[in-house]
Amino acid sequence: MRSDRPQDSHLDDTSPRYAQLTQRIAGKGASAWNIHFRAKARQARGEDVIILSVGDPDFDTPPSIVEAAVDSLRGGSTHYAEVQGKRTLRERIANFHRTHGGHADASADNVAVLAGAQCGLYATAQCLLDPGDEIIIPEPAYVTYEAVVQATGAVPVWVPLSADAGFQPRTADIAASITPRTKAILINSPHNPTGQCLTPAMWDAIATLCREHDLWLIVDAVYADLIFDGEHASPDSLPGMPERTVIISSLSKSHAMTGWRLGWVVGPPPLMSHLVNLALCMLYGCQPFIQDAAIAAFDEPPAALATMRDTYRQRRDAVVETLRDSEIVATLSPAAGMFMMIDIRATGLSTHAFADRLLDEHGVSVLAGDAFGPSAAGFVRLSLTVDAERLREACRRIERCAQECHGESRLAARPINGMTT
Amino acid sequence: MRSDRPQDSHLDDTSPRYAQLTQRIAGKGASAWNIHFRAKARQARGEDVIILSVGDPDFDTPPSIVEAAVDSLRGGSTHYAEVQGKRTLRERIANFHRTHGGHADASADNVAVLAGAQCGLYATAQCLLDPGDEIIIPEPAYVTYEAVVQATGAVPVWVPLSADAGFQPRTADIAASITPRTKAILINSPHNPTGQCLTPAMWDAIATLCREHDLWLIVDAVYADLIFDGEHASPDSLPGMPERTVIISSLSKSHAMTGWRLGWVVGPPPLMSHLVNLALCMLYGCQPFIQDAAIAAFDEPPAALATMRDTYRQRRDAVVETLRDSEIVATLSPAAGMFMMIDIRATGLSTHAFADRLLDEHGVSVLAGDAFGPSAAGFVRLSLTVDAERLREACRRIERCAQECHGESRLAARPINGMTT
Repeated sequence: MRSDRPQDSHLDDTSPRYAQLTQRIAGKGASAWNIHFRAKARQARGEDVIILSVGDPDFDTPPSIVEAAVDSLRGGSTHYAEVQGKRTLRERIANFHRTHGGHADASADNVAVLAGAQCGLYATAQCLLDPGDEIIIPEPAYVTYEAVVQATGAVPVWVPLSADAGFQPRTADIAASITPRTKAILINSPHNPTGQCLTPAMWDAIATLCREHDLWLIVDAVYADLIFDGEHASPDSLPGMPERTVIISSLSKSHAMTGWRLGWVVGPPPLMSHLVNLALCMLYGCQPFIQDAAIAAFDEPPAALATMRDTYRQRRDAVVETLRDSEIVATLSPAAGMFMMIDIRATGLSTHAFADRLLDEHGVSVLAGDAFGPSAAGFVRLSLTVDAERLREACRRIERCAQECHGESRLAARPINGMTT
Repeated sequence: MRSDRPQDSHLDDTSPRYAQLTQRIAGKGASAWNIHFRAKARQARGEDVIILSVGDPDFDTPPSIVEAAVDSLRGGSTHYAEVQGKRTLRERIANFHRTHGGHADASADNVAVLAGAQCGLYATAQCLLDPGDEIIIPEPAYVTYEAVVQATGAVPVWVPLSADAGFQPRTADIAASITPRTKAILINSPHNPTGQCLTPAMWDAIATLCREHDLWLIVDAVYADLIFDGEHASPDSLPGMPERTVIISSLSKSHAMTGWRLGWVVGPPPLMSHLVNLALCMLYGCQPFIQDAAIAAFDEPPAALATMRDTYRQRRDAVVETLRDSEIVATLSPAAGMFMMIDIRATGLSTHAFADRLLDEHGVSVLAGDAFGPSAAGFVRLSLTVDAERLREACRRIERCAQECHGESRLAARPINGMTT
């Protein structure tokens, strides 16, 4: 739906027109965090609110990484850096990629450093997708994907993940979504919001589809270093895939570096040339002192990393354990990451209504699953970003809220004369 | 000109297709710095090369700003920040804007913080320009403008600045370029590469055109704090202009913070909403510790700032003085910034040939004026980013190179039999 005047016309009728793009990027991504901002405002007023609505680690960045940035800053690394990223950092990233299941020949020439994985995904989409192209994305999906794709004029084609199949994609569903306009498949594994990982067999099946239909495979792997059990698989190690696979990642989640805005793209060298041209006019490079901190993070992985991963695992287990005996809500245990999904379908409430009530009456903020796509309706996503004790308290509040909703919906369902059914 | 396969097809024939965008951003912007990279490589090999080909201050960022970042980092400001930018920083920017000739009512709601002025310009173009729109830009112009505009699918309409008029724009030229497709005018003042500033009368004339034709006025003002003589004017202070003016700036040049990649956009609030939506999917905010450093830079302007500006002025004067008596090259004295233009038309060489020879035989790297647009053919741009003594040496080499070229071209022009003409 397009109109000559964008939706902001009530704010400022006298401005000249804005670009059509402004309508394409004003989707649910922009509004998904409203409940989070509401929760933050209440917390700032001193209220007892447990915030589980954002994927920002409660850990600060490990001191050794911070000190690497400090040394670099004080050493005068305050000037422009190579637009593709410092070669030393790109070598470290290539090495990390190779040792995390990636293509054995990946080198610094296969890497571009950008201002975060979000920026890497945006830039990749810009370089791969034309207006009218279709890109297949399993949903639920991370909330910014829609805007990233629509910024290019391409069309996201959502493939529902079934809650009852543990939100695992099915090859047949993806295959059935391919049309002559399909240009790419975007896979997020480990997956936000569900915490599930693709199986090796599934990677094989998707790679086969990409080769057969000459498609790009874009992988958002930002949680790859937070897998609790098993190994991360990278599809560019499969035959015929290096030239059509783009892997996007960062240290944000694994190293508690969300605020540093440093990420990368691994892919074929021609893509790197295009990304550099785009970065020249979009960013003009990333901060050299942040790149130096990232190099230090690769060279001397802080001991804190394993601790952080273990902590997320313990928190996951705390949630599973606390809600194990609930007769109303159910947990979907994640294999990786810092999020998990709670099934609240038995409460009888919509997820938005449940999330609102949970915040308003019980002081816990979570995101409604629907924010990530209709297939996650009936689920809320909570972040494992407070300590286990606080998470248990949050779970007790969730259970209490669910009990109330459940009771009321049974009451509401009871016929007026009090007859049982 | 479009083809199904982009120009990189020789690099990797097996990849699926790239987006058409990759062709639109692969312009001269990407190749302008080739001579600079060549010079850097020679310098790295230990050769005596004076590099005057990039706008990166030779000053490091003042220590008080560095220490503000250090304190913030060590204090744990390593998490996501507000996507529009910290309110405190936006307030400082609004105040800076108001006290530098900007609209008196500008507030934090008129400001978005982005990853550098380059990023601010890119994001602004994305939010204002549709494919097929025209945007009027005086040329010579900064080399990334073409890619910024073409990334949106819009068309840059270049208005030549006459060297013989000191590269000042003429109202009639701009007016004559306006068509029904014109959406915006982009003005860079103080101007790169020429160092000239628009006169108040010229701002008035351009503002009138914008109001009459319902156009956006986009201003790249990154050198506004490096004006040697006079005051910076900001057109959003003119009647009817706040709702159609977008001012883009940063601390990169004035505070020697190029590597920090922090800039901002000042404009009407609806544009800020659109920029935030774009930033959500393109950046997800800027580093909080860098924003804290910027706040410190505004709160306690380091004494070094005035020193840096004075130093650039002295260097400008050193170049003017050293080349004053040249009979072949002429200087165009800049009113602001860190660049100046040298007229080498009398050498008889093309600017590219002159720049190549100057680097290859005399060890000085400058950019060919043509890189900024055909109207700067016959000029080279040098950066005032080495000390005055080294600049004088560079000028002596420029003069020597020009003398040689001039001599050779006179010899070449002499008829074979030695007859004079």
